[in-house]
Amino acid sequence: MKALVYRSVGDVKLEERPIPRISQPTDAIVKLTKSTICGTDLHISKGDVATCKTGTILGHEGVGIIEETGESVRGFKKGEHVLISCICSCATCEYCRKGMYSHCTTGGWILGNTIDGTQAEYVRIPHADSSLYPIPKGADEAALVMLSDIFPTGLECGVLNGKVQPGSTVVIVGAGPVGLAAMITAQLYSPSTIIVIDMDNNRLRVAKSLGAHHTIDPTNGKAAETVKALTEGKGCDTVIEAVGIPESFDLCQNLVAPGGVIANVGVHGTKVDLHLENLWAKNIAITTRLVDTVTTPMLLKLALSGKLDPSKLITHKFAFKDMEEAYNTFGAASKHEALKVLIEF
Amino acid sequence: MKALVYRSVGDVKLEERPIPRISQPTDAIVKLTKSTICGTDLHISKGDVATCKTGTILGHEGVGIIEETGESVRGFKKGEHVLISCICSCATCEYCRKGMYSHCTTGGWILGNTIDGTQAEYVRIPHADSSLYPIPKGADEAALVMLSDIFPTGLECGVLNGKVQPGSTVVIVGAGPVGLAAMITAQLYSPSTIIVIDMDNNRLRVAKSLGAHHTIDPTNGKAAETVKALTEGKGCDTVIEAVGIPESFDLCQNLVAPGGVIANVGVHGTKVDLHLENLWAKNIAITTRLVDTVTTPMLLKLALSGKLDPSKLITHKFAFKDMEEAYNTFGAASKHEALKVLIEF
Repeated sequence: MKALVYRSVGDVKLEERPIPRISQPTDAIVKLTKSTICGTDLHISKGDVATCKTGTILGHEGVGIIEETGESVRGFKKGEHVLISCICSCATCEYCRKGMYSHCTTGGWILGNTIDGTQAEYVRIPHADSSLYPIPKGADEAALVMLSDIFPTGLECGVLNGKVQPGSTVVIVGAGPVGLAAMITAQLYSPSTIIVIDMDNNRLRVAKSLGAHHTIDPTNGKAAETVKALTEGKGCDTVIEAVGIPESFDLCQNLVAPGGVIANVGVHGTKVDLHLENLWAKNIAITTRLVDTVTTPMLLKLALSGKLDPSKLITHKFAFKDMEEAYNTFGAASKHEALKVLIEF
Repeated sequence: MKALVYRSVGDVKLEERPIPRISQPTDAIVKLTKSTICGTDLHISKGDVATCKTGTILGHEGVGIIEETGESVRGFKKGEHVLISCICSCATCEYCRKGMYSHCTTGGWILGNTIDGTQAEYVRIPHADSSLYPIPKGADEAALVMLSDIFPTGLECGVLNGKVQPGSTVVIVGAGPVGLAAMITAQLYSPSTIIVIDMDNNRLRVAKSLGAHHTIDPTNGKAAETVKALTEGKGCDTVIEAVGIPESFDLCQNLVAPGGVIANVGVHGTKVDLHLENLWAKNIAITTRLVDTVTTPMLLKLALSGKLDPSKLITHKFAFKDMEEAYNTFGAASKHEALKVLIEF
């Protein structure tokens, strides 16, 4: 089969690889129909993710068809269509029993990280019964690929951790795919005001078209001032950090209202300054989270019933054979006005 | 009357002052029977608290007898015994209506900060109806002074923000009076393990005698390692930061288990490093809070019924006329093995 392999820093290429085989009775082999590329895949290709060794097939998002199942798998049969979760979970360890699947002791984020991933014609999915979701035939599978990672991530790490409430005020720093997924799912909880901050004016236009009440380009250094002016001087109840650099985290600390939450979604590569000298008495919370994908069933129902259209974040489509071009486009997202690139098999 | 006044940096003295008078119809004048000194008073005397101007009478903790009430006060009459909350609350502003009394727009922590406080023979209490609590005659008023600030602070900012649960693991960094109050109130929620870390071995002995399962002196640099060994390699579900310096906050980040909370109680004067490069995917929360004193009614019931004995933290007693000596003793707490110093009028 063909597979997109992380070969060395800066080098990802399509290679010929053997089709994966069942190695545990709880495994399933899935034949991909759709996949996509995540910002994390770009981080890996730049050598930023120490856990991912060269030679690994990348990708942790996808939809496909069951090709084969191990003898313990009870929930899936050959030929059924499935959504692949970016998080594999055994459903039995201490963390899984608490619903913290991201920290599953034999799973978590392993696909396209510590084991081969979904940017290939076939993928082996460990703990298949609790890591795959059935999807009806005829569903919009392109849209559902967005539920492998970015929608549960935006919802769980941003909206739920950020305690978005009816009538509350929300600001999202960073309007990339995950920031926008947070913005879209925040609307499920009816906040009074959604503000989006990004330096990319195309992304701000998209944010506005998808429901942001106000958008702010922070390059003039007045983002915090503008947010205060929009919130009676208080700042926002929920601040979602969807960038992952010290500057954006710093801005978030100036946006949060007393009693509010800074919900970190961004993947950080370095420490940040935390201004406890200002925040110690402000009754705030800062939360971090690797997505647990506990909201995937809910998001599937919303998407299948038409209440949520995750396909709005797909800007580009590529055939799998053009995977390297897809990486180049996604890697220069701003130039190409790219959000999510759909990969079709 | 005599009053302890912050005169200039490093200079607090007893002075003669006029007895305060009702200035708003919601005020009460309280004649103190007991007071105490808080670590924050020491910070003020060192010039660390910009909101407190020289000339202010210090103190935000106390018990006393109603001397006079403004014409709107409905809940209290001359001669009744009252507990003074460190937080004054109007009970009507947006923050008060959310139970966030610490951020009351005309109250909050003002006593002994922006208005004259309780280290005086008399004090004026604004918003008396919602800032004082009735206490029965004959109650142990020395013990109840501990409910003005340190017990609700330990409970709300540490235990409740830290989500202490039956069976959970708790580590408290800093065994000063507030850290110990957190440790005592944590036991109300039946955690399986309580670990206390402090460099003062006397305080560790006190912690052990009051319920700590394990105590650690961190001077050998192995505190995190020891906590991991005591918690199956995970760290603790609740980490309570009760010191307020970058080193202690740093240690807390190495003590928290996946899914846990770092509940900040310490008053910080400077920024700290937040290691988001390690914590972004660890599903943790960091919380801050100025005590709202929403748990004071609960703590009063516990203390009056004998389920909680806050007097255990009182190590020294002084007559009010020896207030300056009390400051000297509390200011050299380690040397004197001091926790709380009771001031008697």
